[in-house]
Amino acid sequence: MIKVNVMYPYSEGARFDHAYYRDRHMPMVKARLGSACAYYTIEKGLTGRAPDAPPAFVAICAFVCESVEGYQSALQEHGAEILADIANYTDIAPVIQISEVVVERSDR
Amino acid sequence: MIKVNVMYPYSEGARFDHAYYRDRHMPMVKARLGSACAYYTIEKGLTGRAPDAPPAFVAICAFVCESVEGYQSALQEHGAEILADIANYTDIAPVIQISEVVVERSDR
Repeated sequence: MIKVNVMYPYSEGARFDHAYYRDRHMPMVKARLGSACAYYTIEKGLTGRAPDAPPAFVAICAFVCESVEGYQSALQEHGAEILADIANYTDIAPVIQISEVVVERSDR
Repeated sequence: MIKVNVMYPYSEGARFDHAYYRDRHMPMVKARLGSACAYYTIEKGLTGRAPDAPPAFVAICAFVCESVEGYQSALQEHGAEILADIANYTDIAPVIQISEVVVERSDR
């Protein structure tokens, strides 16, 4: 099982519409990925290690998928539509990484 | 619900013992956090956006907790033991951030 992380670096004054991201963008991407993506997660950055420091990332999402190949082939088909929607919620270029899920959830 | 992300930046030649992290360090930290942490997740970075690019982070873990206060008070009590164990698996200084969980898991 793999995880595709999309991480939006914090930068002062940058724009990020968390409501649009949660209610419109992410459900649309999940619909386009179809069964290639088991589920996704979303988080909103609050602080860094110190409570008065900004977070490294203002938002992080992860798509949990069976395989990199499945994710990429679904993405290729719908990439243009997904990319075109990004300007609707942010002007930040995300950092993307693919990870192997080592522990999906320690209590299961 | 909040998530404490601990992210170890990739750097060439840096040391990270994924087996120790999964089998020893993370279960120990969870035991010390007790009920302040509901569960944790672990992932191992594979690649960046391009399949031949290194990942931004070689490992990412997250502690899912009821509150920042609960996490921090449990951490204060056991912080020295936890910090002392880090040298056993890595020489990388992690990036830490606290996030609000917006969508814990889209299929639930």
